[in-house]
Amino acid sequence: MDALIESLWMTVSTILSPHGPPTQAGAASYAPSDFSIHFFLQLAVIILACRTVGWLGTRYMGQPQVVGEMIAGVVLGPSLFGLVAPDIQAAIFPKETKNILYVGAQLGVALYMFLVGLTLRLDHVRSKVRSAASVSAAGILVPFLIATIITPPLTRIPGLFATDIPLPSATLFMGACIALTAFPMLARIINERGLASSPLGTLSLTAGAFDDAASWCVLAIVLATCGGGSGVATLAIGGGVIYVSFLLLFGRRLLAPLGRAVEARGGMSMTVLAVTLMLLCLSAFIMDAIGIHGIFGGFILGVFMPRGRFADELKNKVEPVTVVLLLPMFFTYSGLNTRLDTVNSPSLLLIAFGIFIASVIAKFGACYLAARLCGEDNRTALGVGILMNSRGLMELIIINIGLQKGIIGAPLFSMLVLMAVTTTMMAGPLLDKFYKQENAKDGMP
Amino acid sequence: MDALIESLWMTVSTILSPHGPPTQAGAASYAPSDFSIHFFLQLAVIILACRTVGWLGTRYMGQPQVVGEMIAGVVLGPSLFGLVAPDIQAAIFPKETKNILYVGAQLGVALYMFLVGLTLRLDHVRSKVRSAASVSAAGILVPFLIATIITPPLTRIPGLFATDIPLPSATLFMGACIALTAFPMLARIINERGLASSPLGTLSLTAGAFDDAASWCVLAIVLATCGGGSGVATLAIGGGVIYVSFLLLFGRRLLAPLGRAVEARGGMSMTVLAVTLMLLCLSAFIMDAIGIHGIFGGFILGVFMPRGRFADELKNKVEPVTVVLLLPMFFTYSGLNTRLDTVNSPSLLLIAFGIFIASVIAKFGACYLAARLCGEDNRTALGVGILMNSRGLMELIIINIGLQKGIIGAPLFSMLVLMAVTTTMMAGPLLDKFYKQENAKDGMP
Repeated sequence: MDALIESLWMTVSTILSPHGPPTQAGAASYAPSDFSIHFFLQLAVIILACRTVGWLGTRYMGQPQVVGEMIAGVVLGPSLFGLVAPDIQAAIFPKETKNILYVGAQLGVALYMFLVGLTLRLDHVRSKVRSAASVSAAGILVPFLIATIITPPLTRIPGLFATDIPLPSATLFMGACIALTAFPMLARIINERGLASSPLGTLSLTAGAFDDAASWCVLAIVLATCGGGSGVATLAIGGGVIYVSFLLLFGRRLLAPLGRAVEARGGMSMTVLAVTLMLLCLSAFIMDAIGIHGIFGGFILGVFMPRGRFADELKNKVEPVTVVLLLPMFFTYSGLNTRLDTVNSPSLLLIAFGIFIASVIAKFGACYLAARLCGEDNRTALGVGILMNSRGLMELIIINIGLQKGIIGAPLFSMLVLMAVTTTMMAGPLLDKFYKQENAKDGMP
Repeated sequence: MDALIESLWMTVSTILSPHGPPTQAGAASYAPSDFSIHFFLQLAVIILACRTVGWLGTRYMGQPQVVGEMIAGVVLGPSLFGLVAPDIQAAIFPKETKNILYVGAQLGVALYMFLVGLTLRLDHVRSKVRSAASVSAAGILVPFLIATIITPPLTRIPGLFATDIPLPSATLFMGACIALTAFPMLARIINERGLASSPLGTLSLTAGAFDDAASWCVLAIVLATCGGGSGVATLAIGGGVIYVSFLLLFGRRLLAPLGRAVEARGGMSMTVLAVTLMLLCLSAFIMDAIGIHGIFGGFILGVFMPRGRFADELKNKVEPVTVVLLLPMFFTYSGLNTRLDTVNSPSLLLIAFGIFIASVIAKFGACYLAARLCGEDNRTALGVGILMNSRGLMELIIINIGLQKGIIGAPLFSMLVLMAVTTTMMAGPLLDKFYKQENAKDGMP
């Protein structure tokens, strides 16, 4: 039986690695067809893993799909699959093919952040101005305050941050990591439960949107100042300011014809879709080229895109392939970089736990208190705190940028993956316990 | 002014090639972010070119969008852009990034052929059994007959075919190239003009589908026998037969639950979409791994997928991104390989023209005659011949496989690109002239 398995495995591994073991062959020895063989197999494995773990999480733990996919990515990486079956893992995900996975992941995240920008609404405030402003402010100020407390000791532990990173940049990065909210997930939870016009919905949507926008701006500043010489920073900040100013001044007006074309035709033509995706790629290229990051290009363009029918149709056409095919590549690429084995001592585990607790206090605690101080009832305040504390995919995106740009090292990256997964997993059950229960008391479904 | 342009260009080329001129740096020196910078710029340029040329063709020449995109790919390659501005072309499309474009193109074509398989119907025959059978047979037999005449002299011209290719394989490949019909384009033209139940529609759809299926089978045989030793051929033919038999026996039944899930839910869930795309990737991997080609995996799986609501929703969700974002990568990858400068002597030009004439005679002539001999009126027979003669994207797919697998060389590849573009461009105007005119006489719109 063992011999049979071994001979089957030899056949598969010969097909996968026609040039010998992947560690010995460089990417240069790969023919284009070798890349596509791996690519299709990887995609099949990735989609299968994401859907299976996602289904298990949804079915048995009441978790949203995204939690399962975050975990599936880690499972496919060196932390589990690579630990249990290193040969098979290396044959399916050889180093040489990682760049292709990276590019697919970037495309997926740029499209996703574009859709996030497209659904971002800063006009939700309505009646709850005071509470919303307080929760927003608390949700951004307390995380940065806590970051200034915990970052200095963290930078003294070797390997967590880059050695040459200035303390202010490290602090801002940690602050942004803690302050982030999984805005798209929050919006979906609120819409699914029909809470959009409830106090909870209004408060969370407004505060989440403001805090997310602020966190991404801070990250852009960190990236602009961490790139290298002052010329790099000038290009990044100057270019970023010029581009965003341009969009603020002319964006809505220049993009409006796309919306009108959709309204006039009663649907989105392939040409309108093509122009939109072309602009998205151009925007991502500009942000990449000036040294910030491509996904900002997606996000910022999405914010200025026409709404209404245009946005709805665009979402219908782009979201399925993005969510089912492209984003799982991002979860996997992120998981391939996650090395939970680097968090390998009691002291490092303690640090990981400390970061988690600090993040929960900074986000859940601060937002809950701010809501209570503004006179919201206990149930609403709890709901707001729970929703604001869930970080989901957005956290993975920010820490992957941090790792790729050399701001943080593998151990801190892995700790933040754990923090992201845990704070996201907490949201569903806590909301059910503290919000739905009281909801039921009110006699509402 | 020249100095300004030059300094602007220096800035852009420094951003694009941080490691010096692309010809000197290997892919190994590229950081992942270098790939994504190029990727977003390439995508923006590709979409812009495809839509612009496509729009020009639609607007001023009455051509379908696909013709413009075929030409746009050639324009972006060494035949025009690379000839006029070699530095800029090399900076945007450096060799190091070609594998990523290739993988994107493969994904696009696999998805596209999957959709083609999904819309393929072999049950169109109805009343026209005799005519349809005759046109199908003529449309497959005459091309292979003509291929046996023209291939032997072609193999004697150095550089057209691989030196070690057996004459039967070369002949079968040429036959398949000539016999191919742009089935999806044909189906769209017929549906758009409301001809699906007309004699022209019935005849063309049936004959086109059969001829295409036959051509792809022949190509699979050529690929299976051209791969190398007899072990490779055995794996390819044996594996292909086993896989297709498996799908014939169990495909419909195993895939039916996907269709039922869509009907029951009144829509396609992300899970059903994910399972479908996972199966597609797996199918493409299997066909790639046994040595045929990934796109067969897409096509053959599409044929056995459930129809009705499932197929409609799948098309709505997958087609937009495939057609607007992914397929243009294929046109460009194909165009980057097209070197019209290799057809550089009067004798080679004469050969290119000869191949074009032979292809038109073999397909238009044979199908027209077959339809006439079966008693169809002149107008219908002309329409059938014109539609069957248009080869479009399908031809580009087959010759790209031939080039990649080393069956044909760059000059023959370029000649067949010319043949594909020309026979596709002929269809629209000829149909307007010979079919619509008489149509107008009949008083129909």
